[in-house]
Amino acid sequence: MSHPYRFAEQASRFVSHAEQLAGEVLARHAAAVDRTPRFPEESVAALAQAGLLGLTVPAALGGLGQGPRAFAAVAEELARGCASTAMIFVMHTSATQAIASSKTLGDRDAILKAIAAGKHLSTLALSEKGSRSQFWAPVSKLAEAGDGFVTNAAKSWVTSANFADTYVASAQAPGAASPLESTIYLARTESDAVRPQPGFDGLGLRGNDSSPVSIEALAVAARDLVSEPGKGADTMLQVVLPWFAVGTAAMAHGLCRAAVDATAQHLQTTRFEHSGTGLRDLPTLRARLAQMFVRTEASRALLGRTFDEMEAGSELAPLFVLSARRDALESALAVTDLALKACGGAAFSRQTAVPIERLFRDARAGWVMAPTVDHLDDFIGKALTGLPLF
Amino acid sequence: MSHPYRFAEQASRFVSHAEQLAGEVLARHAAAVDRTPRFPEESVAALAQAGLLGLTVPAALGGLGQGPRAFAAVAEELARGCASTAMIFVMHTSATQAIASSKTLGDRDAILKAIAAGKHLSTLALSEKGSRSQFWAPVSKLAEAGDGFVTNAAKSWVTSANFADTYVASAQAPGAASPLESTIYLARTESDAVRPQPGFDGLGLRGNDSSPVSIEALAVAARDLVSEPGKGADTMLQVVLPWFAVGTAAMAHGLCRAAVDATAQHLQTTRFEHSGTGLRDLPTLRARLAQMFVRTEASRALLGRTFDEMEAGSELAPLFVLSARRDALESALAVTDLALKACGGAAFSRQTAVPIERLFRDARAGWVMAPTVDHLDDFIGKALTGLPLF
Amino acid sequence: MSHPYRFAEQASRFVSHAEQLAGEVLARHAAAVDRTPRFPEESVAALAQAGLLGLTVPAALGGLGQGPRAFAAVAEELARGCASTAMIFVMHTSATQAIASSKTLGDRDAILKAIAAGKHLSTLALSEKGSRSQFWAPVSKLAEAGDGFVTNAAKSWVTSANFADTYVASAQAPGAASPLESTIYLARTESDAVRPQPGFDGLGLRGNDSSPVSIEALAVAARDLVSEPGKGADTMLQVVLPWFAVGTAAMAHGLCRAAVDATAQHLQTTRFEHSGTGLRDLPTLRARLAQMFVRTEASRALLGRTFDEMEAGSELAPLFVLSARRDALESALAVTDLALKACGGAAFSRQTAVPIERLFRDARAGWVMAPTVDHLDDFIGKALTGLPLF
Amino acid sequence: MSHPYRFAEQASRFVSHAEQLAGEVLARHAAAVDRTPRFPEESVAALAQAGLLGLTVPAALGGLGQGPRAFAAVAEELARGCASTAMIFVMHTSATQAIASSKTLGDRDAILKAIAAGKHLSTLALSEKGSRSQFWAPVSKLAEAGDGFVTNAAKSWVTSANFADTYVASAQAPGAASPLESTIYLARTESDAVRPQPGFDGLGLRGNDSSPVSIEALAVAARDLVSEPGKGADTMLQVVLPWFAVGTAAMAHGLCRAAVDATAQHLQTTRFEHSGTGLRDLPTLRARLAQMFVRTEASRALLGRTFDEMEAGSELAPLFVLSARRDALESALAVTDLALKACGGAAFSRQTAVPIERLFRDARAGWVMAPTVDHLDDFIGKALTGLPLF
Repeated sequence: MSHPYRFAEQASRFVSHAEQLAGEVLARHAAAVDRTPRFPEESVAALAQAGLLGLTVPAALGGLGQGPRAFAAVAEELARGCASTAMIFVMHTSATQAIASSKTLGDRDAILKAIAAGKHLSTLALSEKGSRSQFWAPVSKLAEAGDGFVTNAAKSWVTSANFADTYVASAQAPGAASPLESTIYLARTESDAVRPQPGFDGLGLRGNDSSPVSIEALAVAARDLVSEPGKGADTMLQVVLPWFAVGTAAMAHGLCRAAVDATAQHLQTTRFEHSGTGLRDLPTLRARLAQMFVRTEASRALLGRTFDEMEAGSELAPLFVLSARRDALESALAVTDLALKACGGAAFSRQTAVPIERLFRDARAGWVMAPTVDHLDDFIGKALTGLPLF
Repeated sequence: MSHPYRFAEQASRFVSHAEQLAGEVLARHAAAVDRTPRFPEESVAALAQAGLLGLTVPAALGGLGQGPRAFAAVAEELARGCASTAMIFVMHTSATQAIASSKTLGDRDAILKAIAAGKHLSTLALSEKGSRSQFWAPVSKLAEAGDGFVTNAAKSWVTSANFADTYVASAQAPGAASPLESTIYLARTESDAVRPQPGFDGLGLRGNDSSPVSIEALAVAARDLVSEPGKGADTMLQVVLPWFAVGTAAMAHGLCRAAVDATAQHLQTTRFEHSGTGLRDLPTLRARLAQMFVRTEASRALLGRTFDEMEAGSELAPLFVLSARRDALESALAVTDLALKACGGAAFSRQTAVPIERLFRDARAGWVMAPTVDHLDDFIGKALTGLPLF
Repeated sequence: MSHPYRFAEQASRFVSHAEQLAGEVLARHAAAVDRTPRFPEESVAALAQAGLLGLTVPAALGGLGQGPRAFAAVAEELARGCASTAMIFVMHTSATQAIASSKTLGDRDAILKAIAAGKHLSTLALSEKGSRSQFWAPVSKLAEAGDGFVTNAAKSWVTSANFADTYVASAQAPGAASPLESTIYLARTESDAVRPQPGFDGLGLRGNDSSPVSIEALAVAARDLVSEPGKGADTMLQVVLPWFAVGTAAMAHGLCRAAVDATAQHLQTTRFEHSGTGLRDLPTLRARLAQMFVRTEASRALLGRTFDEMEAGSELAPLFVLSARRDALESALAVTDLALKACGGAAFSRQTAVPIERLFRDARAGWVMAPTVDHLDDFIGKALTGLPLF
Repeated sequence: MSHPYRFAEQASRFVSHAEQLAGEVLARHAAAVDRTPRFPEESVAALAQAGLLGLTVPAALGGLGQGPRAFAAVAEELARGCASTAMIFVMHTSATQAIASSKTLGDRDAILKAIAAGKHLSTLALSEKGSRSQFWAPVSKLAEAGDGFVTNAAKSWVTSANFADTYVASAQAPGAASPLESTIYLARTESDAVRPQPGFDGLGLRGNDSSPVSIEALAVAARDLVSEPGKGADTMLQVVLPWFAVGTAAMAHGLCRAAVDATAQHLQTTRFEHSGTGLRDLPTLRARLAQMFVRTEASRALLGRTFDEMEAGSELAPLFVLSARRDALESALAVTDLALKACGGAAFSRQTAVPIERLFRDARAGWVMAPTVDHLDDFIGKALTGLPLF
């Protein structure tokens, strides 16, 4: 059997390792992480120990030197065990890539080495209360102060807010004419100016510590800048967005695969006592499972195609990146919805061995995380009809 | 504005009372009831005190003497405040109607008087572990024992299991040739033979104490029978099913209405800080709200039509009863799904004033409760093509 | 069995007459009308002879004096036999109501008497090439000329263009500040200035002679005005829109009912030679039929509810009028799509007795006729969030 | 830009040639072919002349020696110009592959050489009136007669019935215990025993001459057998089904691409005269176009993945073949439906430059052609739950 993302042979052991950790570590804690909710500390520690936090860090800095294909395959495997852990991993890796792309960050290589060593967790802090889901348009501002800057912000939905060492954050550049003239900087959580608020309590992805963060009078030195001043949009759209998009698409696929597997297992093993037939003998249930499988594999294949476009440096690559995330998000909704309908009461309960209820909730988190499906549709539609994206 | 169920003028005050209790009592406890989860004791007590537990009990026995139209309107109002409470009310009223229809139950009138006085809570105990969602086909059996019977059963999903005074339960009649030859009897929870198991923990409707119940060596006297021996299917299909179906349809409509109201309110009041526009200025969000409203009102109207068919004694009435439940269940899924998509992060969180996340979960309970949408489709399809239902 | 539109007892004979004509006259010509395509002259003549062209004309002027309930029931019956004929009837009746509402039209009563006598066919000519589907915003203009006006227009999609005696047409009032300041006038097709262009050739509703019409230097006298100058929007939105909306909703329901009936018949009577089982034994096909029935009846019930709101003069009546059309249009798409999927090749062919292929095409005409589903969603969404409609 | 089917570099010129013919020849005749309807003789002649009828014939026999990837890419290009022609090509190539796989057919190589030379058109004749869409279960039978066999059959839906030189046909083997014990034979249309009936007149794919064929007392010699006696299911399931499935999937993708292109073009170029804005400025229309693009590319990518599985000889290859067809068929329905909704009246008419109306109808043919989506769902569902397919 081929793999839809067609990663290089040498990446196989990282993907296999991720699959093993997902089954042995992540899955064991997933229910409690969801229910409490709490941060999956054991699972993130296992990723760190396996070197997977440095999966995309260049080998020269101690990392595993992998690109988007292996990254996606790892994120997908992790999501099969615990989607909250996968989300933390995707946010961390997207932030890592922003850091790696920086020409201004003073301790860039030191951070990347620490990441590769499993000693540094990073994340993104882009969205804000005032701009809601339009993460590319911060309302917070960097004001000049001495050689550097100072800033205040009400960041919303920061994953790993209480556990990350650094946030890759955005603000309007000094004197910005529009929110699109932004700067990306690195906020270090050791600062008292960075204050995570009480954590998120919502429908799904409950364990990734997605919390609001209040930033008050934070000093940002010139060597803390990730992008050049006013060039934040480039970092967001050319670095963060592609990694985030393919990572979250892969996460969604992990949820889909877990739902397909659990549903197939449930239909195959459940029988009616009074008639001797089983759930798999019902054509309507088989059809739902079939639709789940087909939808899952089509979306995975689209992500595989997206890597081809990215590697070819095709001008259509951004369109495919957006499309892959769009399809994956909706597929995860559709597939877990079908799973709930195929498995009925057994899927609805938290007390059975079938984790569909959690998959169903976790899948819905993707829809509300920017760029949302509505944003993606709008960007794709603009690109196809010759309109500017912003 | 007309009411889609077109209940009699004199029922208005009961519906208004239900609306008032839903807003003032049920809604106040709903979040905690869902979260803990726990039985909504205050809310059920408020219904009892208002006389609503006896809504359909004949006036001659102290009840309010109402029929299906007012029952549905009340269930709908209750669901706007707390769907778990509405579910308890619907199960109780369906059981009450089964009791009222009995010609064999020794203390029928005494129980109905107690119900009317708010001193007796009843419920249904039809589904079983062995027959899964096919509630009309019990695998448990009544065995003859002296003048009466004795029975064992593993009942699943009994609403109000730890709080009801009686269960309207089913078993195969002695010597039944098929599970369809059943008998309905009244199980009194004061008996040690009736043992509710630890309660349900699932995706939605978390407060209605839907628990498995183990019945072990329960003595069932002839005067405990609700149906005549072997005539259980008549009671289930001609009494319980219609009341349960229209009640749960109305519950689903209450969830829809709450979602429409919350979404309209959210779109109308939420603004983007950086652009000065608001959510209601986005055509895709307006379209979702429109679709929610239209879907809700179409389904409510179908239930109204169903009452016309029932009152006319039309031979199509059963088809409309099944159709009304079918449409309401799917409408509740569709409408709350659109609400989640229209309101995004604000709906996804449990920490905002917008209760859409709970409505979304509660709505999904209907799908897994028999007769499920799959059952309903099958019954309706058989009826329309001249096939027997069983 | 009750009727979802609950028309008055005395209207029953008109509805029955329409049903009879649909089965005996309209259905006989429908395939040829669709295929050629050609205007259903025999069917319209039968309506005229039966007095149905005057269904809503006041009895004092020789009409049958019926309101929206009977009108909808008649339109629905006609659509079961031939949707093109039903469309002609709906356009004619909507135009008739505009005429009846006029305080300025010189020969209003004479025209209404001719209509009642079956000697006058009218229609609407609102949409224009320049404003596309936004029929409420004509780009043509009335220019003052002597005591009256003169106008040029490129009207698009005029039903019965070559057969109607009059068109109820729109243009911007002289000096209008916006296209919304319009005037409604009566164009008489006997004038050389009114020139229907070669007819429509499209996917569905092929027989209603929906043609572009070129109006060149048409003199419009003051006594030809249907609305007062600049008050056209009132006539369009308060008279034409409600009648058109409920009429087209009912047409859509007629298509749905025909599809349900044909599908039930096909499943019930078709068998596999090699296995001895029949199509109705396939659960997936039964489920589709069930969904078709439920969807049809929910939409019909919503239209019934809409009449209640209209009669009560409820401020929600316009919202329900838009909602009823919206739900009916989408139901007709969904129901005929399911019919095609349930009946397969037999429905796909034009050579079988199952007319589903034509129903499927005719149903799609509703979507492209203004106000389209997109318009309706937008209007409904604006109304629900407190925004002005225009 | 990469190609989703990833055919070999040397196949590029065949795909380019197909694209060129589609644009220059097929598209020119497509409207007339659909409308009349008539067989696209000019287009098929152009394919023959270009050598494309021998695309998959081994080079040693004069063919182009291509495999499934190039075949699919060619079929997709052809469908962009004329789906009827693409269907003829797919049926011909599937039949060609059955012939090429034969160890019993006397003049196998001569036929393949004639095919490569563009002088022989073949097709499939599997489905029958008695077995409806279950093409794998013929009710016709081969009876032994002398050294060979004789057979009668009522074949339905034979593409190119009046134009093909040979049909690859099925019948039950002599003494078959079930319809699954079939034999594949070659029927030569020069025989008087093979009588095509008057052609198909249906919703879509109107030009491929899909006609019933009456076979009466046809002598089938031993050297006319394509499969060994009783081994027909192997040929159907291991040779015909994969080629047919990927070919029809690719055809569906060609329709999708044509719809995406036409819709993008229409939105980009159409403006409202009265407001100065254009269709592409409407977010709901942009979103539909985006969904069309994403759906199309996901389905194409799944077909690309399927080729990987086929080439790897994976045991999952058959599952992916079924899945690719399933997804493509439904994508074509969804994408052309969205096109109709995005383009409105312009798409609905046959008189505009936008051919969406025809694409919409052609796409629906896939649903009714076996194996239908319902069959595919059932097969996939059985495979995933460990049930035998038949």
